Amino acid sequence: MFRKTSIFVTALIGFAMIPLGLFADEGMWLFNNPPKKLLKERYGFDAPASWYDHVQRASVRFNSGGSGSFVSADGLVMTNHHVGLGALQKLSTKEKDFVKDGFFAKTLDEEFKAVDEELNVLHEIVDVTDQVKSAVKGDLSATESAEARRAVMAKIAAESEKQTGLRSNVIELYQGGQYHLYRFKRYTDVRLVFAPEQQIAFFGGDADNFAYPRYDLDMCFFRVYEDGKPAKIEHYLKWSKSGPKDGELVFVSGHPGHTDRLNTVAELEYLRDFGYPFIMQRLNRLEVMLIVYSGQGQEQERRAKDMLFGVANSRKARLGGLEGLQDPAMMARKRAQEKTFRAAVANDPSLKDVAGAWDTIAKVQTVRKNNIKRYQMLEGGSAFNTTLFGIARTLVRAAEEYAKPNEKRLDEFGDAEKKSLELRLFSRRPLYEDFELHKLTDSLGWMCEILGYNDKLVQRVLAGKAPRERAAELMAGTKLWDVAERKKLYDGGAEAINASQDSLILLAKLVDKDARAVRKILETQLEEPKKQAYDKIARAKFAVEGTNTYPDATFTLRLAFGTVKGYTESGKQVPFETTFAGLYDKAKDKNHKPPFDLPHRWIERKSKLNLNTSFNFVATPDIIGGNSGSPVINKDAEVVGLIFDGNIQSLVWDFAYTDDEARAVSVSSPSIPESLRAVYDAGGLADEIVSGRRK
Amino acid sequence: MFRKTSIFVTALIGFAMIPLGLFADEGMWLFNNPPKKLLKERYGFDAPASWYDHVQRASVRFNSGGSGSFVSADGLVMTNHHVGLGALQKLSTKEKDFVKDGFFAKTLDEEFKAVDEELNVLHEIVDVTDQVKSAVKGDLSATESAEARRAVMAKIAAESEKQTGLRSNVIELYQGGQYHLYRFKRYTDVRLVFAPEQQIAFFGGDADNFAYPRYDLDMCFFRVYEDGKPAKIEHYLKWSKSGPKDGELVFVSGHPGHTDRLNTVAELEYLRDFGYPFIMQRLNRLEVMLIVYSGQGQEQERRAKDMLFGVANSRKARLGGLEGLQDPAMMARKRAQEKTFRAAVANDPSLKDVAGAWDTIAKVQTVRKNNIKRYQMLEGGSAFNTTLFGIARTLVRAAEEYAKPNEKRLDEFGDAEKKSLELRLFSRRPLYEDFELHKLTDSLGWMCEILGYNDKLVQRVLAGKAPRERAAELMAGTKLWDVAERKKLYDGGAEAINASQDSLILLAKLVDKDARAVRKILETQLEEPKKQAYDKIARAKFAVEGTNTYPDATFTLRLAFGTVKGYTESGKQVPFETTFAGLYDKAKDKNHKPPFDLPHRWIERKSKLNLNTSFNFVATPDIIGGNSGSPVINKDAEVVGLIFDGNIQSLVWDFAYTDDEARAVSVSSPSIPESLRAVYDAGGLADEIVSGRRK
Repeated sequence: MFRKTSIFVTALIGFAMIPLGLFADEGMWLFNNPPKKLLKERYGFDAPASWYDHVQRASVRFNSGGSGSFVSADGLVMTNHHVGLGALQKLSTKEKDFVKDGFFAKTLDEEFKAVDEELNVLHEIVDVTDQVKSAVKGDLSATESAEARRAVMAKIAAESEKQTGLRSNVIELYQGGQYHLYRFKRYTDVRLVFAPEQQIAFFGGDADNFAYPRYDLDMCFFRVYEDGKPAKIEHYLKWSKSGPKDGELVFVSGHPGHTDRLNTVAELEYLRDFGYPFIMQRLNRLEVMLIVYSGQGQEQERRAKDMLFGVANSRKARLGGLEGLQDPAMMARKRAQEKTFRAAVANDPSLKDVAGAWDTIAKVQTVRKNNIKRYQMLEGGSAFNTTLFGIARTLVRAAEEYAKPNEKRLDEFGDAEKKSLELRLFSRRPLYEDFELHKLTDSLGWMCEILGYNDKLVQRVLAGKAPRERAAELMAGTKLWDVAERKKLYDGGAEAINASQDSLILLAKLVDKDARAVRKILETQLEEPKKQAYDKIARAKFAVEGTNTYPDATFTLRLAFGTVKGYTESGKQVPFETTFAGLYDKAKDKNHKPPFDLPHRWIERKSKLNLNTSFNFVATPDIIGGNSGSPVINKDAEVVGLIFDGNIQSLVWDFAYTDDEARAVSVSSPSIPESLRAVYDAGGLADEIVSGRRK
Repeated sequence: MFRKTSIFVTALIGFAMIPLGLFADEGMWLFNNPPKKLLKERYGFDAPASWYDHVQRASVRFNSGGSGSFVSADGLVMTNHHVGLGALQKLSTKEKDFVKDGFFAKTLDEEFKAVDEELNVLHEIVDVTDQVKSAVKGDLSATESAEARRAVMAKIAAESEKQTGLRSNVIELYQGGQYHLYRFKRYTDVRLVFAPEQQIAFFGGDADNFAYPRYDLDMCFFRVYEDGKPAKIEHYLKWSKSGPKDGELVFVSGHPGHTDRLNTVAELEYLRDFGYPFIMQRLNRLEVMLIVYSGQGQEQERRAKDMLFGVANSRKARLGGLEGLQDPAMMARKRAQEKTFRAAVANDPSLKDVAGAWDTIAKVQTVRKNNIKRYQMLEGGSAFNTTLFGIARTLVRAAEEYAKPNEKRLDEFGDAEKKSLELRLFSRRPLYEDFELHKLTDSLGWMCEILGYNDKLVQRVLAGKAPRERAAELMAGTKLWDVAERKKLYDGGAEAINASQDSLILLAKLVDKDARAVRKILETQLEEPKKQAYDKIARAKFAVEGTNTYPDATFTLRLAFGTVKGYTESGKQVPFETTFAGLYDKAKDKNHKPPFDLPHRWIERKSKLNLNTSFNFVATPDIIGGNSGSPVINKDAEVVGLIFDGNIQSLVWDFAYTDDEARAVSVSSPSIPESLRAVYDAGGLADEIVSGRRK
């Protein structure tokens, strides 16, 4: 499965503008600058503005890190099972495991409110580039520039939210080349309608993850409500009963999370030699830690399931990315492109100030290398791996940040983010003492390893105790399990926080100075110089190559396009689609042993299914993690599929798009109503999907 | 389960002498210097020399890294299932999985020859300290000292082997304070007699590993043959039908692999801050890599089973050790001891030359830190994680080393090691292309991460290709799968090796210079100065504390003693033994879900078992990894148990013995014949064990 993405985690990684010289179907295009010319020339596709507007408003962002779409006028939202997984996990208990057993609400009354899910729909884009740029004067220091930019962006967002009532964010595109104000309609009453068993959603498990051919019903349906009733949706996608056709043009509208395609070679080398290896080290450690916990029993396995899924999924995706970085052919292409472009810049007198940009970016990688581990441990929270620490930190910082004017706050405490923050902070998601303790114990030990046992802060965190002992003490001394306690501290502000003797509040206070300090170093000594250097490179790109291009992914809405088609792998033709028949063949071939076992229901109902139904298919649109759950639509904007993965060859798309073998992988639209009817007795839901209305 | 141990892996870690001021039952004592006085004073035990000689000769070392004992006059050897696991794995195929299903030979004809198992029995110990020390003159450089010592040790061993026909090794004890020549009888016709299902041998899996109370039948029986017939054994251990009694004195005779108890604080800090974290990083990576491979299907799971078991077991043991190192209380004790001792040394004018030893040891940790990763990757072979690379390297080095005189060779190519080396080199253990490729691919990627992508050797190893591509090329270009091919290259010597175009031979040649270079750095700049410094400290110890003490573990035969007794954990009494009844209760409590599921046979035969039979028990003898499979005997040298583990609290025994909660964990003797009869219809084997003779 694709990694889901997270808004805050990607914040400090940096992004950039994509060069021209695109591969055939390359591009994650902005909805206010779609590739109309390209589509017309290459595919003879020439839709009116209303087509784009319709698709944009039918697209849904899961704030927890994924994509989706409206597929009925009554608020029905389609996404992936693995995007809904967090919500499913939070609704599950020892007695009712919706992840394992699935869920189907037969009536509206049975639809089950998600604990803390927030969905956003992009309603409007306003170009605010001039307003932002004019606030950042040329003679400011790096720190002052960063502060001025943050202030004006926070101000624009807050004013917009106040004025429109819509969630408003200023998005930095083309690495500071442009700033767009995005206004989202926000849905927080999100109810679970249907989820299949994880066994069929993730058939083949880790072994088949990022593989193709594939046989996964990776789908999940939610419904958004307003005022206690299903929301009325004007823009929803029609359904294609016939599904994808070999060779046809298709589009993907979704929220690609993060790409590094215009990184300079120096940045890619940093990622290859330091960034990715550190990520792998962390993911391997987490995966083993979670497997160990899961091995204690069935209930522990259930509790850790979504986290283990996420970690294993990231591990496989990242290893694929790292393999790309370690591939000398890929790096040679990048190097050649950079050389050619730098030569063009050197030959253009008007671009004289750009020449040093590459060296600046290369130079600041040292700042990154020297600080990223401490950043990850303290500010990223890897040293304190319990949900409760995140809550404690939010409470401690809220008291401090909300006392400042909006423009001076840390980004995530901007007025525009407040509602989302409160939704997460007061979430009643289940937390389990033994699991939180297990994670915290492991992470305190890892903190000693990474920051060094004799680090002064480490010693203060341990307070003279061994990590295991200290973790137990911290867990016993907190009341943050209780949402009422969180509310009390939140409402009480600085006074309440200062008076609190809660162990985790005290811990969050203890580390806050160091955490903020390392964040500041990366923001001012890495991000700001990089931003200014990439801004120069971006301007040079526009000058040399023209402006008809797309920015690196930013977990904002993008449109990709491409062709439904198979590929050739090691001399063997891989057909574009699979069928239900193939699913049963594979299960049989693997003796129905996990992860190739089928849910009982799928064995019992086999004869009721049309086995020739298209199940999964591949196509060339340019996607990445965060696109999970995106609709695949045809020229008529009808759903022909549901993105859930890329194949192994697509894992280098983080750095460079290719389409010789790399493909996006989707659930075919016909398999969805077919399985709902034949396997799940969910004909009503199937009818709603196909007709676009509840009956 | 305890880690097994390996002779070569531990070679460069270093060991030392244990201080006095022992805890009650502390000590891994030498058979030629047993703690007679202590035993008499503390337990009133006063056995004649013949008692020790009998126990010594009844003790068996599994050269693959574990312990065992003779339990019948007809060559029957008892050990742990997890010690026999490698042999079981090598005998298994897709069709017959002895690891999963167990094995029982009803007749001698059915006893199944292990592929490459070598058992050693210690027959004689000769003190050769003077001979070794006189060969190492005081005025030599570090390199010359190391070479002179190696030469004389190789010479003594080779002469002894020639003269006696016994496997001969010179063992360094008390870190160079003493050198003893050990003469072993060697058995290489080792046949599998009985193994239970891994499910019952390792009931509770990773979750219960190093836990107590416990319910594991971790046993395995082999028989040694000579001239095609069961070997006649004079010294075998009698069986205790009644088993362990609460509070009784017991002994453990076995081969503790490695301890770090007399490490200086500086060395312990190195291990805490660098050594162990790097080991954890490697083990986490390996564990995930193996889990990923195992997830591909049942057969893959089978193929990777023993390696995954070993890695997960080490990971849990090492993490326990690291937790000890991160415990400020443990380190404070070590620091206080060192301070006291250094003060005593400083006050003794005759020990003036000793004072600088601690600083020397502290200083050379930098050498270790700067070189250990490269050593592990190149000389340890972690960069080339396929059994075939080990074979290729052995062939390449054999051609070079055997051309030198015995005294000049690398240790493992000494004449005394030749037979063992050939046994491993020409082993017909099954190798699977996909598994070897999977491991090699992952390890080449890891090599890039650890050594750096731009490292010159890394670039030469990759030969312009991505790790995945290069691994496939290497695997396709080798014929070392074929034992005949290995023999041809081995017999052909340097000429054959130089002419070979085998991909892995070429690779082994390519890395050999660098691998030898980093080994040499560690041997001369770390080990030799350490040896000399620890030698000084050892002399000071003898002077200050007397000589009645024991050396750190060296995977040679030791005697430990202690008391059968339970302990108090978090205020709760943990009884000394468990019973079969407890096994069934635990399985029921865990819903019979893996790893708490029982083999069918154990469910069917429940009514035939005496459920009150003692199953596992704990006692205080001082053991460590490598002791796995050791017999636990009573005063009459009767087997009352079979060591298979230590509890979680014992994992700090690597660094310091304590007996408040830490315990050795064993299978009780009565459970062995009882389960053989009631569950496995193996009454004949049970009779042989209990009576000491085949019927």
